[in-house]
Amino acid sequence: MRCTYFVAASLDGFIADSSGGVDFLKQVEAEGEDYGYQEFYSSVDALIMGTGTYNSLLKFGVWPYAGKPTYLLSQTVLNPVSDVVLIKEHPARLLSQIYGAGSKHVWLVGGGKLASTMLAQGLITDIVLSLVPVMLGSGVRLFSGRESRTTNLTLKNHQVYKSGLIQLHYQL
Amino acid sequence: MRCTYFVAASLDGFIADSSGGVDFLKQVEAEGEDYGYQEFYSSVDALIMGTGTYNSLLKFGVWPYAGKPTYLLSQTVLNPVSDVVLIKEHPARLLSQIYGAGSKHVWLVGGGKLASTMLAQGLITDIVLSLVPVMLGSGVRLFSGRESRTTNLTLKNHQVYKSGLIQLHYQL
Repeated sequence: MRCTYFVAASLDGFIADSSGGVDFLKQVEAEGEDYGYQEFYSSVDALIMGTGTYNSLLKFGVWPYAGKPTYLLSQTVLNPVSDVVLIKEHPARLLSQIYGAGSKHVWLVGGGKLASTMLAQGLITDIVLSLVPVMLGSGVRLFSGRESRTTNLTLKNHQVYKSGLIQLHYQL
Repeated sequence: MRCTYFVAASLDGFIADSSGGVDFLKQVEAEGEDYGYQEFYSSVDALIMGTGTYNSLLKFGVWPYAGKPTYLLSQTVLNPVSDVVLIKEHPARLLSQIYGAGSKHVWLVGGGKLASTMLAQGLITDIVLSLVPVMLGSGVRLFSGRESRTTNLTLKNHQVYKSGLIQLHYQL
C-alpha cells in the first residue's frame, strides 16, 4: 500500500503561484513528453486532495480525473463534481478505508497543507518531485505546514529531461 | 564574473533549522566525500554573506574561511572577526567593487534573505544546490524574501551521490 505525493515544483519550492495557477509548468511543456505522468496515473487506484487543489482544478472547466475515484478532504466544499467524494474524516482514517477497500496505490494530488499533515502523520510513502527550472518567489508551498519534524528520505531514482526538469523519486 | 549561491538544503527547501543549525547535514557526511566543496572553494576569490549566516558560523568557534576575503553585509554586526570586512553598501554596489578589484568568482554563502534580494536584483549567476534527502518542516528558507518574480533557470549539470544527496547546478 503506497501513497505517493507526485508533484511539480519550482526550485524555490512552490507548487502553484500566488493565485493558485500553474503557468510555470508551461516552461517545460514539450511535444510528446509527459514526464512519466500517464504511466504514473495508470498506476494509481485512487486520488486524494484538499480544498485548494480541488478549487484550482475546477478552473480547468473539465474535471481532469474522470473515472478515477477521488476523495476530497474538505470542510468547506459543499457539492463536489461527480467522480469526487467529499470526506470529512481525518486523512489517516480515510487512507485506511481506501486501502481496506482494495486500493494499492493512492495519489496525493498536491495540496501543500494536506501534504504537510500527511507527512507529519507518516502517511506518505513516496514523493515524486519534478523540479522545474524556475523560481517563483511566492505561491503555494510544497509543504505548507510548520511542523518541525525531521524526516529522512531515500533517493530511489532520478531522471533528467532535456527541458532541465529533474524528477526525483524519494521513499520515506 | 560569476556569483554562485552554493548551498545545501533539505528537500522542503530549508538551509538551516529553526535555531540556525545545520545538523541535518550529518546525515550525508561520508568519509572522503566533500560533495565538490574543496574544488568549489578554491575556485572562489571572495565570499559574501548576511548577518544570519555570519552569526551561525561564529558558533563553530574557529572562523572557517580564514585567508579568503569575506564581505559581511550587515547593519547590526559591529566588530567582525579578522578576514571579514563589514559592509553597509547595497549588494549590487558591493559586487561591482569586488569585481572591479579583480575577483572573478564570488560565493554567496547562504543567507536566505540576502539570497532573495540578490536574486531579485539579478546578481546571482549560478546556483549550486545540494539537495539533502531529508525534510525539516521549518527553519531558514533557501530564499526567504517574498518577491513574486518568475526567474527562468538552466540546469547545467547534476550529480547524484551514494548518500542520496543530489547536486544541481543551475545558471540564471
